[in-house]
Amino acid sequence: MSLVVVGSIALDTVETPFGSITDGLGGTAVYFSMAASLFAKVSLVGVVGEDFAQQHRQLLESRHVDLSGLATWPGRTFRWHGTYDYDLSVAHTLDTQLNVFAEFKPSLPETYREAQFVFLGNIDPELQLTVLEQIRRPKFTLLDTMNFWIEGKRDKLTEAIERVHAVTMNEAEIREYTQNYSLTAAARQIMALGPKVVLIKRGEYGSVMVTRDGAFLAPAFLLEEVRDPTGAGDSFAGGFMGFLARAGRVEVSLLKQAIVHGGVVASFTVEDFSVNRLARVTHDELNHRYAEFQRMTYFEPLA
Amino acid sequence: MSLVVVGSIALDTVETPFGSITDGLGGTAVYFSMAASLFAKVSLVGVVGEDFAQQHRQLLESRHVDLSGLATWPGRTFRWHGTYDYDLSVAHTLDTQLNVFAEFKPSLPETYREAQFVFLGNIDPELQLTVLEQIRRPKFTLLDTMNFWIEGKRDKLTEAIERVHAVTMNEAEIREYTQNYSLTAAARQIMALGPKVVLIKRGEYGSVMVTRDGAFLAPAFLLEEVRDPTGAGDSFAGGFMGFLARAGRVEVSLLKQAIVHGGVVASFTVEDFSVNRLARVTHDELNHRYAEFQRMTYFEPLA
Repeated sequence: MSLVVVGSIALDTVETPFGSITDGLGGTAVYFSMAASLFAKVSLVGVVGEDFAQQHRQLLESRHVDLSGLATWPGRTFRWHGTYDYDLSVAHTLDTQLNVFAEFKPSLPETYREAQFVFLGNIDPELQLTVLEQIRRPKFTLLDTMNFWIEGKRDKLTEAIERVHAVTMNEAEIREYTQNYSLTAAARQIMALGPKVVLIKRGEYGSVMVTRDGAFLAPAFLLEEVRDPTGAGDSFAGGFMGFLARAGRVEVSLLKQAIVHGGVVASFTVEDFSVNRLARVTHDELNHRYAEFQRMTYFEPLA
Repeated sequence: MSLVVVGSIALDTVETPFGSITDGLGGTAVYFSMAASLFAKVSLVGVVGEDFAQQHRQLLESRHVDLSGLATWPGRTFRWHGTYDYDLSVAHTLDTQLNVFAEFKPSLPETYREAQFVFLGNIDPELQLTVLEQIRRPKFTLLDTMNFWIEGKRDKLTEAIERVHAVTMNEAEIREYTQNYSLTAAARQIMALGPKVVLIKRGEYGSVMVTRDGAFLAPAFLLEEVRDPTGAGDSFAGGFMGFLARAGRVEVSLLKQAIVHGGVVASFTVEDFSVNRLARVTHDELNHRYAEFQRMTYFEPLA
């Protein structure tokens, strides 16, 4: 089934204790697309500057990512510069240059408007709303956001949340938005606004999904080595939505499998800088790690 | 099978955003005993002062905890005063009065020395070694420690680690002791010293067990409400060891079930101050939550 992603496309400069990269391909829409395209066809909406390298387009096209919604504007591509110390869970931003992304107005090509699965990256909620207006009959829409919009555009954000099927935030964000420390109570507040699914990201600890059927707890795959955590959350969303789009339907057992796939894909992302590992990962590796994760989490019922 | 615990007995004064308690019954040996006694007979080794209330003894005895190893010395019982803010994962210590605990020298009654399961709370590693010397044929010994001993008595701690079957630390402690950020690599370093099981506590995120068979990931039970996290780690250890002692043997599938029981018991502990909730919990509640946890974590294999 068709899957649309709207979000940033960035050139990231990142330093971690395990290496560094300058102007590496990154951004929400890129990590999401590389992850989701392991499962389904992805249509990308975003903007880049004239400095965006042909090789980056080719990489995305090699994964059958539809780039007809990718605008190229005069100027430079969005750039982010960040570092991580040994506590890889905290990114320290050194510099952000929005460049062409500052004026981003998502406009969906006609062929995208029949999409059934839609991921709204953490852009301005007003833009998220304009995207929703352009999609005719979405089956499953997932919205991400961040503290900047929670603090600066709370009303518009609430309007957008009211119109989607699912919301994803990290623990700090959902607590800030709902002013509720309890994750289950916070999730219920979100569901009271309309969404049926709340997906709470906990970084290296994994994620929690809350639906009306209860909670599902997915720890993160335990890795021997993490080199760069950038893009983990967007890859997680990509694996999740890609898996659902391939299935073509949404039910609780599939949502759980989708979350595990999201975690598995993200576990590859963080093994290398930029999308380097995501670009190499094979279906055999994915399936192997899915099965390994099942062994890592299964325990026997009581006799 | 017989299960011995050695550790602190405290009177805790605790404030959290959800309430407070003054001189509540606490300490490693108490939380451990209350948790483990849900599954097996526990023999406690510790020391209290003359101010230790009769009702506390009676509570432990009502759970068939053997107190013949509990010494009463002239002076006051160990006291701890701490607060938590909304981030319940961090305890802020306001005051510690070791009192009689400062001179604690664990001496095991003759009847304890045949114990097969032993938990060494996070006391001075030299004392942990003297306990091990007093146990004749232990089947499964679990050692806990803390930053104070990692920094101050590293060599003795290593000696103690070399002599136990299993080690439990939290993430920060195992990273500090091994000087290794990767949990799997850190666990392997511990196993190279002798232990077959490494149990890493991750607070509200649950735990990870590493054995030669690989890793087992157990997220923490997702609670609606946490009132006081004090004693969660010791209750976890108690549920874990109590379950194993009841089984009377140690194998990987049982270790996994034991970890889940530890997490389930700890989830009750934190629902109230001191051991108030632990004192009330029923076997039906435990089994119900075990089954609920299984529903919260199970997902289907790939078709």
